[in-house]
Parts: sequence; structure tokens; C-alpha cells
Amino acid sequence: MSENAVSEQEASTARRGRAASGGAAARRAARSGGGPGIQQTYIKRAIKVYEVLDEEGLSIIENNADTVLEETGIIFRDDPEALAMWKDAGADVKGDRVHFPKGLPRSLLKTAPSVYTQHARNPERSVQIGGNATVFAPVYGPPFVRDLEGVRRYATIEDFRNFVKLAYMAPSIHHSGGTVCEPVDVPVNKRHLDMVYSHIKYSDKPFMGSVTAPERAEDTVAMAKIVFGDDYVENNTVLTSLINANSPMVFDDTMLGALKVYARHNQACIVTPFILAGAMSPVTVAGTLTQVLAEVLAGAALTQLVRPGAPVLFGTFASSISMQSGAPTFGTPEPSLVSYGAAQLARRLGLPFRTGGSLCASKVPDAQAAYESANTLNSTILAGANFVLHSAGWLEGGLASCYEKFMMDIDQLGMQQKFAAGVDLSENGQAMDAIRQVGPGSHFLGCDHTQANFQSAFYRSSIADNNSYEQWLAEGEKTAPQRANELARRWLETYEAPPLDPGIDDGLKDYIAAKKASMPDAFT
Amino acid sequence: MSENAVSEQEASTARRGRAASGGAAARRAARSGGGPGIQQTYIKRAIKVYEVLDEEGLSIIENNADTVLEETGIIFRDDPEALAMWKDAGADVKGDRVHFPKGLPRSLLKTAPSVYTQHARNPERSVQIGGNATVFAPVYGPPFVRDLEGVRRYATIEDFRNFVKLAYMAPSIHHSGGTVCEPVDVPVNKRHLDMVYSHIKYSDKPFMGSVTAPERAEDTVAMAKIVFGDDYVENNTVLTSLINANSPMVFDDTMLGALKVYARHNQACIVTPFILAGAMSPVTVAGTLTQVLAEVLAGAALTQLVRPGAPVLFGTFASSISMQSGAPTFGTPEPSLVSYGAAQLARRLGLPFRTGGSLCASKVPDAQAAYESANTLNSTILAGANFVLHSAGWLEGGLASCYEKFMMDIDQLGMQQKFAAGVDLSENGQAMDAIRQVGPGSHFLGCDHTQANFQSAFYRSSIADNNSYEQWLAEGEKTAPQRANELARRWLETYEAPPLDPGIDDGLKDYIAAKKASMPDAFT
Repeated sequence: MSENAVSEQEASTARRGRAASGGAAARRAARSGGGPGIQQTYIKRAIKVYEVLDEEGLSIIENNADTVLEETGIIFRDDPEALAMWKDAGADVKGDRVHFPKGLPRSLLKTAPSVYTQHARNPERSVQIGGNATVFAPVYGPPFVRDLEGVRRYATIEDFRNFVKLAYMAPSIHHSGGTVCEPVDVPVNKRHLDMVYSHIKYSDKPFMGSVTAPERAEDTVAMAKIVFGDDYVENNTVLTSLINANSPMVFDDTMLGALKVYARHNQACIVTPFILAGAMSPVTVAGTLTQVLAEVLAGAALTQLVRPGAPVLFGTFASSISMQSGAPTFGTPEPSLVSYGAAQLARRLGLPFRTGGSLCASKVPDAQAAYESANTLNSTILAGANFVLHSAGWLEGGLASCYEKFMMDIDQLGMQQKFAAGVDLSENGQAMDAIRQVGPGSHFLGCDHTQANFQSAFYRSSIADNNSYEQWLAEGEKTAPQRANELARRWLETYEAPPLDPGIDDGLKDYIAAKKASMPDAFT
Repeated sequence: MSENAVSEQEASTARRGRAASGGAAARRAARSGGGPGIQQTYIKRAIKVYEVLDEEGLSIIENNADTVLEETGIIFRDDPEALAMWKDAGADVKGDRVHFPKGLPRSLLKTAPSVYTQHARNPERSVQIGGNATVFAPVYGPPFVRDLEGVRRYATIEDFRNFVKLAYMAPSIHHSGGTVCEPVDVPVNKRHLDMVYSHIKYSDKPFMGSVTAPERAEDTVAMAKIVFGDDYVENNTVLTSLINANSPMVFDDTMLGALKVYARHNQACIVTPFILAGAMSPVTVAGTLTQVLAEVLAGAALTQLVRPGAPVLFGTFASSISMQSGAPTFGTPEPSLVSYGAAQLARRLGLPFRTGGSLCASKVPDAQAAYESANTLNSTILAGANFVLHSAGWLEGGLASCYEKFMMDIDQLGMQQKFAAGVDLSENGQAMDAIRQVGPGSHFLGCDHTQANFQSAFYRSSIADNNSYEQWLAEGEKTAPQRANELARRWLETYEAPPLDPGIDDGLKDYIAAKKASMPDAFT
């Protein structure tokens, strides 16, 4: 067989050959992808990172960021405490705008760890964040879901639980994430309690805390203390939470309030400028990187003023807008360049790095969604991202969490995990015995080396249909989202919750009941 | 706007904002993607390559390949002339198997150029192959098409012409390719004449020659001489053609015959082991790389025995088989590792490198097709491939050329071309004026820098729908393949052939008529 030899006659032979190999549906059901397989620990990358900036480019951007911090400054809005901290640290505070002497934020960040462990209630699920580790977490934030009936509607707490369950079962998801969707059916001032409880109850992977108000961050910490114990939480990191800058160059009191709560309790913050380039930052990659670096330096350094040594990540959310419609776009070349560049800047700062995911603008889990997600995910991995939010389930520019997309994305994550293991150069990897045994003009299907390695040699997709056209026709002409739909249903039917100490469970329920009873429902 | 702030209320506002921004369909029609835009020259990569092997790994594989060449050897089947050449060159020939003294093929390849120009009949479309250049060519080989009615059927010469036309119009396709589909309605012994004519008549981009018989390669050269002149063809390269090894470790007389014809006329050959790892090579990446290197060394070196200095590429076609069904799989991690590693080996040999494309196993242009294609294409670009066959239109493991996939793929190629330009670090790229002008808490939409750069700042997709859900609903809930279908129809309706000297056209027609009259039709 060769590229030149696929004539119609040979194609026909190939079809018969494949069709004759028997029940593909049965085989698929037997695959590890047919149900949740062995849980994988976080990725320990054995591969290199990819870089798009040289030393000169990095220096230019770092110097420019220092200039922005000094001359333009960053607004810390409605937070007198933060402003006072900056004044005490030696910054020039004018109103709510802080101008930073050259090198101040960078020098403050020397106390931030380059690597930390986020502990899970199941110690086997604890993750390293930083260094050569990569951790995948699900989509974060969508108010809508695209459900298993193909209906796009507001998300509910039931959807929230479902996504936590699927993430718990997914071998390639290492972290339960945070707002896997917005449970719109729960009052806005109480839903964080149900969300945090769901992560604890329906998963044993590490999770994220609420950031939509300082008191909700305090609730998250309190609930974590019920699970882990008071002292444990103060001395270890059990939460990694998302703090967005209000770009350009503003942090608001909501985000700052949450940041201070988490840092004070030694919990990790991901300081992330949420950038749609062209709207929240300049239209160029270098300009965007400059602003991102300035914002991260200011926000991340504040955590060290609150508590030196508190873990903090250099976060980037890179997208562009369509200059024609203003809509966000994903999977295009410019955000990939931003991700690669930002990763380099984070490594030079010595901070763990968050970027990317499986981002797309498409409204459905079609080819657009997949091209865009794959482009984003490939650059995310090769950039060396340490924490990857939105790694599964993201649809429609982040407005919808999609079940089918979630199942397709986790398959892609599994591929990336295999890729990150790099090339095996052991004697078995070199396979010289196989080449000697088989020789010219034969095939490797039955040779000893193949027999010894076939089960783990190649990544086995849980979604892809690799069968012949005729077999695929006979099995109902299903598309990838249709297979993903069936898989999601099967997983949800067979889900079993991880054990949770009944005392802890009751403690959490009591805490939530008391909190909910203490205030009226609010829906805005 | 931030990841944390996409509440249902804000989502609703965002929807209204986007919907109010007006007629997306009209905007899309006005885009460069709505019709063929300005043709792009081949890619001159300003970015680095990505590598998966270190010096030690490369040395191991190179030494192992030398061992395979010496101990196991390569079969040159049914080609006494090739065997005699190898004997004269100092190889140990036993029957049809050639054993190579260590270093012989590598030493012969010193006369092969690391970079050459393939001339097109329109000099503006000539391409550099090798060095920092990347050239995209369409899918090659499928006997079937998936047509614009969504029907999967045998390909015809009309389909062939259509794909040549679309590739001619596509700004991001630099090369017309070869067997863009098999025109099954033309007798097998005559179709190469119609194929070569179509490339010359309906495009002015460079193209590939027939390799299915030595006399068909001679016909290709003869037709090229009608276009370019006899002396020009002998002294320049106007054809780059695909020579597959019959892996493992066999070259057959068909491929060898074509290779010798092209090399003798100073035309380029892409010596490519067609590898489905696990069947045609060991199941490991390092084992596959070893065999690929051995096969390429043997096949490519033969071109230099035929004519020292004839251009030859290090080709790789990397895929794996499903160990469960035997079917080929695409877009998985192992072939990406093979591509990256083979690119490194090719650079060390000093040969231009071919790999990858937009490969997939899916039967339809769905999410599976797109994930797999994007995974393949991303590794192709970052590996630093110089010539990329199958860069658009490949479906179903290469059994079908798909119009919709073609249109989606060329959009992705445009993105990669933009990515390969890297980060602009000019003063305009740094955008410090924009950051100073806008300052904290505002936006960049209307600032001078954005106004000056918005038209070229971001890649504009010809396929992606970035509009709001409501807008997308109002426009008919189209998926990416549906939009691609409309685009393909529009292009084919508006296609205009490039000018061709009537004397040349007549000369080609006369040649073809005489050739066709000289032999009876054959269909096998």
C-alpha cells in the first residue's frame, strides 16, 4: 500500500479487508474509552517547550511592561486596602491608580513559589502546579449548556453536577475545575455553596474556589477546612482560584477581595488578564504581551504583599476580536503566538503558567469547533502551560458548556498526555529486534515486538471512527458528536461517587444550610 | 468582561450587542475568503522548529539506520539497472537485496541540494523547496470524492479539474499538487495525460508528475518540455514527484522506474516511506524513525547515482494502525512524534523535508476530521516541513477528496502561514503608543494604532462563524461544512483560467491525442 497505489481496485480490496475484521461496535465498547479508564496523574512533560521570542524580544517586552507599570500605572478600583498596601510597599499611588517603581513587582514576586502542590481530598489526585507539570481542568464560566438532547438552554445545578461527574470519570482530566457551568436555577448569592459542595461530593480531584465576592471566597475556604482540617488548609494549598484583571490595566474590588482572601489563607490565585486583543489590548502580539505582563506583575505581586509565599500563577486568556463584527475569535494564529510568548515571560518570572484550553467560537461541536480547539490546545501544550482551564467542554466563545464537546475534548487531552511523554529511546523503543525479525517485504503485525507492545503502543481514541466507509455506513453513519453523545450518556448512567466521610458530608451540608438560611435569595 | 463575569445577564447583553452589529452574511461575502484573495507566495518561516530528539537520540537512530542498511539491507525489486548501479557504487548486492557499507548512502547524498526552486509556468508562483520555506500542496491519491451534494462516489476528471481550479484560487495553496483525485472515468493508462494537462491548463502553480509507470513519467517530462522548453527542463526543476517506498525496506520497479526518469531529467523526487506503523514498521516511534531513515537513505541516494545534483526530498508519511481493527489512524500523538523526529533527521542529512498535511480518518468533514487534521497540520508546521502534500481536501484515510474539507483546510493553511511569520517586534508591533493613548479602564477599538492596523492585524477566517448564537440561528444554523460548501460553489462559479499561450495549449493537446491514439484503453 502506498499513496500512489490507492487505485479504485485496491481501495475496494482494502474495504473488504477492513469490513471482514468484524464487529467494530463491539470492539469500541470494549475500549478503555467506552467507560472511564485508569485515572491518569497530572502530566509530567518529557518534551521541550516551544518558543517564539528570543532574548532580545523578551527584553523588549519586559522593559516595555516596566514602562507601562511606571508611567501609565494600574488601577486598583474601590479597594483602599490594596492601595494602602501598595503605598507601604513604595509605589506611587495617585487616587486609585498605582505607579510602580521599576522592578518593584518583580522583586516582590521572588517570594512566590515556582512550583506548588494543590492537594486533593484523595491524595492520589493531588497535582503539582508549575515546573514540568501540566494539569487539565474543565471549562469555566458558561451560563448556557448544549445538552444531550442538542438543546441550548440555561445551565442548572444538575448540569453542574453532571460535568463534575464526567470530569471525575475522565482519565485525562486532572482537576475538577470551578464554574463548570453557571447553575442559573440557584440564587446567585447561594450558588457558590452548591458548586463547591458538588466538587467535593461528586469528585475527589482538586478544585477551584468562588471569586464572585470576598465572602464567597471565605465560604470556600471554610468548606475546604471542613474537608481538610483548619491547620491543613492554612499550611497547604487546597484551592487554586481564578482572578481576572479587568483589562486594560484595572483590577476591581470583587476580584481583589477574593484574591486577598485566598492569599491570606495560603491558597493559590491565577492572576489572568482576560484579553480579547483589539478591544482590551492592542491589536499586536507584542503589545498584548506587554500589557499582559504589566497586569500580571501588578496583580500577582499583590498576593505577596498579602502573604509572602502564597502560590500565584501567571495567567493568560488570549483571544482576538473580529475587527469586522467585534465578536471574539478563537484558534487563530495571533492568540497562539501570545500564549507561547506569555509562557516564556512566566518562566523568566519563575511563576507557574496558565493559558489556553480547548477554545472555540463555534455554536455547535462541528469542524469549526474542533479546528479551533485543536489549534488552541496544541499551542497550550507546546507552550508548556502548567494549568489548563477550559480544557474540555468549551463551546460558543465560552457561553455554553457542551456535553458532546466535553467528551471529544477529553479524548484530545489523552492524546496530548501521550505526546508529552516524548520518544521512548529504550532498547524496546528502538525496536531493532523487530526490524531484524521482520526484514524487507513482510509486515510487523504478528512479530514478537508488536505482540509485546501492541496494547500500549498507540493512543486509543475513545471517539474516533477509523473503520471503513462501508462499516461506518452499516453502523449508522454517526458523526463524532453522536458518538460523544452516546459515551456521555453511558458514563453518566454508570457514574459512582467516590467515598466521602459521612461526618464531613454532614458538616458541609450543615454549613451550607446555615449559610443559605442567613440571607434571602438574590438573583442579580 | 471576564471569565468570571459571564453571568446570564451579561451574556444576554453581549448577545444583543453582537446581534445589533448587523448583517454578518453581507460582511462575510465581503471578506477575502468570500472569493479568492491575493495569492500568497510560499511560506518563509520566521519561527523556530520544534524538536523532540536530542543529540543522543538522533545519534542512536542514525546508527541504528546504518546497521539496518548494512545488515538487513533494502530490496530493489525487479530493477536490474538499479542493482547494477548499487554494485558499481560499492554496495554488497545479493539477489535483489542491497547491503550498504556504513556511510555510503549518506556520502552519496552530499551532491543533493538542500534547497531548490521548482519553477512554475507563472514565475510568480515558483516555489523554494527546502531551507526555511514551506509549500502547501493539495490532497494526493483518493479514488473517491465526497462531492458538493454530499455524495460519496468515484472521482472523475471533472472532479480533478475542480480541485485544480480550487487550489489555483486558494491564496494559501502554493502548489497544484499531483493526483488531487483519481479520475476513474479515464482509462488508467491514459489518465496521467489528462491530469498533467489539467494542472497546466487550469492553474499556473507548480505541479507534480505521474509515477505509476516509467513511460508516464516520460510523458510528464515531455509535456513539461512543451510548456517550458527542452533546455529549460534539463537545467531547471519544474516537477516534484512522489516516490513511495514499499515499506518495509522494499522499492519496487514502478517507483524505481519513475524515480530514474525524473532524476535523469534533473527533476525532483520525494522519496517517502508510506508507513502505517505497526504494519509497515515497528509499533514504536524510534523504531519507525530508524526504518524511515534507512529507506530514505537508500532511495534518495539512488537519485544521486542516476544524476548527481538532482533534487531529492526526505519524505515521511507517518500514521499508525488501530491495533484492534488494523485500520489506519490519524492525528494521534505517535505520528506527530515521528514527523518531528524525521524532520530533525532530514535537516541533519541536508535534504528538504516532506511530511504531514491535513490528515484524518473520518468519513465526513466533522469534528473528528478537524481535530485529526489540525493535530497533524500543527505538528507539520512546527516540524519545519518544506513540502506539505495532502494539505487540503483529505478525508477518510486518503480514500476520498472532499470539497468541503478542502475549503475548510485552506482556511487553516492561511492561519498557519500567518503564524509562521512570528511576532512583529517593530515599534508598531510593540504598540506602546496605543497603551499610552488608551490607558486603564478604556478600550482599544477606536485608538489610532488600532485604526492603522486593524485590516491586517488578525487572520480573517473564510469559514469560521464568530457571531452570536442568535445571529447564527437567524442565518440558518449553518455548520462549518455547510459554509464551506457554499464557498466552494461560489469559487467554482467564478473561476477564470490563467492565460496559456495558445501554441503551447495546442502542442499539449496534439501530444495527448497522439499518445492516446497509440494504445488501447486499459482499466487495470
